Amino acid sequence: MYFASHAHSHYIRPMHDLHIYNTLTRRKEPFQPLNPPHVGMYVCGPTLYTHAHLGNCRTFLSFDIVFRYLRHLGYKVRYVRNITDVGHLESDADEGEDKVAKRARLEKLEPMEIVQFYAVDFHRILDKLNLLPPSIEPLASGHIPEQIEMTQRILQNGMAYEVNGTVWFDVEKFAKVFPYTQLSNRQLDELLDGTRDNLEGQDEKRGRLDFALWKRATPGHIMRWNSPWGVGFPGWHIECSAMSTKYLGEEFDIHGGGMDLIPTHHTNEIAQHAACYHKNPARYWMHTNMLTVNGQKMSKSLGNSFLPAELFSGNHPLLERGYSPMVVRFFMLQAHYRSTLDFSNFAIQAAEKGFQRLMAALELIPHLPVSDTSTVDVPALRQAVYRAMNDDFNTPVALAELFEGVRHIYAIHEGRDTLTAADKEQLQKLYNEMVFDVLGLKPEKNSDDTLVTGLMQLILDIRSEVRSKKDYATSDKIRDALAKLGIQVKDGKEGTTWSRT
Amino acid sequence: MYFASHAHSHYIRPMHDLHIYNTLTRRKEPFQPLNPPHVGMYVCGPTLYTHAHLGNCRTFLSFDIVFRYLRHLGYKVRYVRNITDVGHLESDADEGEDKVAKRARLEKLEPMEIVQFYAVDFHRILDKLNLLPPSIEPLASGHIPEQIEMTQRILQNGMAYEVNGTVWFDVEKFAKVFPYTQLSNRQLDELLDGTRDNLEGQDEKRGRLDFALWKRATPGHIMRWNSPWGVGFPGWHIECSAMSTKYLGEEFDIHGGGMDLIPTHHTNEIAQHAACYHKNPARYWMHTNMLTVNGQKMSKSLGNSFLPAELFSGNHPLLERGYSPMVVRFFMLQAHYRSTLDFSNFAIQAAEKGFQRLMAALELIPHLPVSDTSTVDVPALRQAVYRAMNDDFNTPVALAELFEGVRHIYAIHEGRDTLTAADKEQLQKLYNEMVFDVLGLKPEKNSDDTLVTGLMQLILDIRSEVRSKKDYATSDKIRDALAKLGIQVKDGKEGTTWSRT
Repeated sequence: MYFASHAHSHYIRPMHDLHIYNTLTRRKEPFQPLNPPHVGMYVCGPTLYTHAHLGNCRTFLSFDIVFRYLRHLGYKVRYVRNITDVGHLESDADEGEDKVAKRARLEKLEPMEIVQFYAVDFHRILDKLNLLPPSIEPLASGHIPEQIEMTQRILQNGMAYEVNGTVWFDVEKFAKVFPYTQLSNRQLDELLDGTRDNLEGQDEKRGRLDFALWKRATPGHIMRWNSPWGVGFPGWHIECSAMSTKYLGEEFDIHGGGMDLIPTHHTNEIAQHAACYHKNPARYWMHTNMLTVNGQKMSKSLGNSFLPAELFSGNHPLLERGYSPMVVRFFMLQAHYRSTLDFSNFAIQAAEKGFQRLMAALELIPHLPVSDTSTVDVPALRQAVYRAMNDDFNTPVALAELFEGVRHIYAIHEGRDTLTAADKEQLQKLYNEMVFDVLGLKPEKNSDDTLVTGLMQLILDIRSEVRSKKDYATSDKIRDALAKLGIQVKDGKEGTTWSRT
Repeated sequence: MYFASHAHSHYIRPMHDLHIYNTLTRRKEPFQPLNPPHVGMYVCGPTLYTHAHLGNCRTFLSFDIVFRYLRHLGYKVRYVRNITDVGHLESDADEGEDKVAKRARLEKLEPMEIVQFYAVDFHRILDKLNLLPPSIEPLASGHIPEQIEMTQRILQNGMAYEVNGTVWFDVEKFAKVFPYTQLSNRQLDELLDGTRDNLEGQDEKRGRLDFALWKRATPGHIMRWNSPWGVGFPGWHIECSAMSTKYLGEEFDIHGGGMDLIPTHHTNEIAQHAACYHKNPARYWMHTNMLTVNGQKMSKSLGNSFLPAELFSGNHPLLERGYSPMVVRFFMLQAHYRSTLDFSNFAIQAAEKGFQRLMAALELIPHLPVSDTSTVDVPALRQAVYRAMNDDFNTPVALAELFEGVRHIYAIHEGRDTLTAADKEQLQKLYNEMVFDVLGLKPEKNSDDTLVTGLMQLILDIRSEVRSKKDYATSDKIRDALAKLGIQVKDGKEGTTWSRT
């Protein structure tokens, strides 16, 4: 049996000098896991009340690179990415209806039917983009007892209060003993002034920044569970605190998500966790930047919001044509995860050319001639690629270095550069590991096509040999067997050709 | 947006005269849903501590046909198929270690990592076999509060008792007020005599047939939750009762599973439900029969247990070669779900020919010539196909009728039969709906798998011939050429096998 977390030995590569940009400290820090070779990583997954959008895909692709590279370095990574199916209200400030429940009400479906429908779609899209499944993919609704217990603990520690069946986190009280705004790098006063929450007219919440850990269910609310505070449902933030603690412990290595989660969701997650365990749950907080389209934020009202499936099919007014999942993956890796990525037909068509050039070079490597000396410095190339990846997973620089190598591969192929056998082996290893394992790219051509072509070549070689020995019985037997498989063989002046009927 | 349950209008086809064999009454009964056009169906899913086996696939394929045909008839089906990730002990009689926890202990992984790994694999296999995802796929571990509440209710109703943190269902007491053995069609005395459970030496369980609703967790037990009876975990049977009630209500239409579930799991599920709600949860209990291999039960000790992935690749000593997922699906549909299905290379190769003939006929239909008169009775053919499906989803008879039509399609193509334009349209509609929508077959667009298999067969035949002539040079040349294409050839006592490296 082959498990993701068993993919590599316990040996951590000596070249490992990985630095990660930590939102918490706003600088790049050397990566030192708490309990090597184990690494615990939690990434906030999607709220599945609609199709996952391309920005989500970019975020999860960024953490797929983190997952893959850490595994490549030799770490045993437990990667937890949740699915939010309850508690995420229309406004992040605990207002409005539950997003999944609203969709269920409008569609007259059970909320879990909505989640299942979009989860199947979400997994198909990520599978096409060649993302590895996380080690654990927990559902918020599947961890109600854990969320209730954590809420109880926060209450016991005096950092929350209950009013009429709703439990609120007391932000201002907590902020006196813990740096509540550390992650967002704001001032508490500033936040208090800035909030639009008006306490007038609602008698439940004491402080403007307070957020719900558990909410009382109104009679019409579909998703509801018993709790010590009556029938209700969990707040949005508590799920990630409960699930990350359950699967990764009270302190783990990496916590990630989109940068839009910094001011509210992640800030409150840290607060909840610290109110229980007096510390930040994660040592490294990583955040991915936004995706824009022709320089503008993707939004439904601007009409520039297309789905991943539309991007693959080209079925959207903004798209000149469809782009294959591997081209999309390559395109996204050409920007660093902390930079915005701007989508345009021009940019992705350029990426397509680059991707094809890279794949063609990879096919060339096994056929490169070898010499007694190398004019290409393969160890230096290798170092440069790892240096880029170690610099906060800098995929655009790593790709640029790999393209520097591609230039040499073509030069060797054309006899303008030379390579020793040992260097050729190293070059092959570097490209296989980096392109396939770490960057997760794969040749798009249906590899069966290549195989069928190869097998046909072999069969026709054998047939030509028996014909040269005038063994026409065997030759005809081969032709007939091929005909039964739907392959027509034609013997002509130029040699033998074949085609599918 | 397109939801599975919205696929068809509320209109139920008038030809609908569906009868379902009900294990509960041991006869075929007309299908009358409780709340048309809605249908609720619950099927017991896999315990994901290892790869799903072929027998599982057959069961879920059978219910995929039920799901598809009911939707085709116009019902709005909510199809719930669970995943068991906790509570299923090594022995169905509540003995031994939890199956998932044991695997987790042996692999030194979090139980949910085991479940995720096998769930991804399970979904990939079912996807290849073109099974539709169920409407809801709940996890046992995700419904602990619901299971605790149901256990409390059974205790309140006096049908269970707690001893040292474990809650037992009192079977003999329950059997006095409800027909406990109705589903298994046995006598209680017989069961009491037959059980191997010896009450001597264990002081907790009062009756030999009593089963656990909640089990006290020993200190080393990995999966554990708080409960009114201390730290523990749910029994295996209670999850299905809790989840079916949550998503389908106190009474729903169809409950299904493999026939091995009848005597214990389903019998106890009915008992738990009836102890709460004084009725059987489902009106129709459907059970699928077993899959055998060359006449024998599949078992690891007999060495005749191959995985679905091995069946597709041919990478198992019992398999002459690989068979495509659609051929496997077609093969399975050629037996009725309540009959045993015997696997042999001969039988599946015959199925492959049949499948290809059917698909070729479907391609012919649009190109058939039309005439002023029909010599083929299309309405009668249509009726015959529906009659078969209405007779307890009799797919082998439906396929036989469709092949009767195939004979005519070829005859029309060759000018020996004639068809009007209107009949041609009806014929097209019948085959599209039945073959694609209801039977869920699809053209193997990528017929490359079959082609590769066929080409390999040819190459290995040639190689075996040259070897018999002691031409080992050619034989080795072939082996080396295949190795370059990533194909490994193994010569053994049983013949030559191949696999992709």
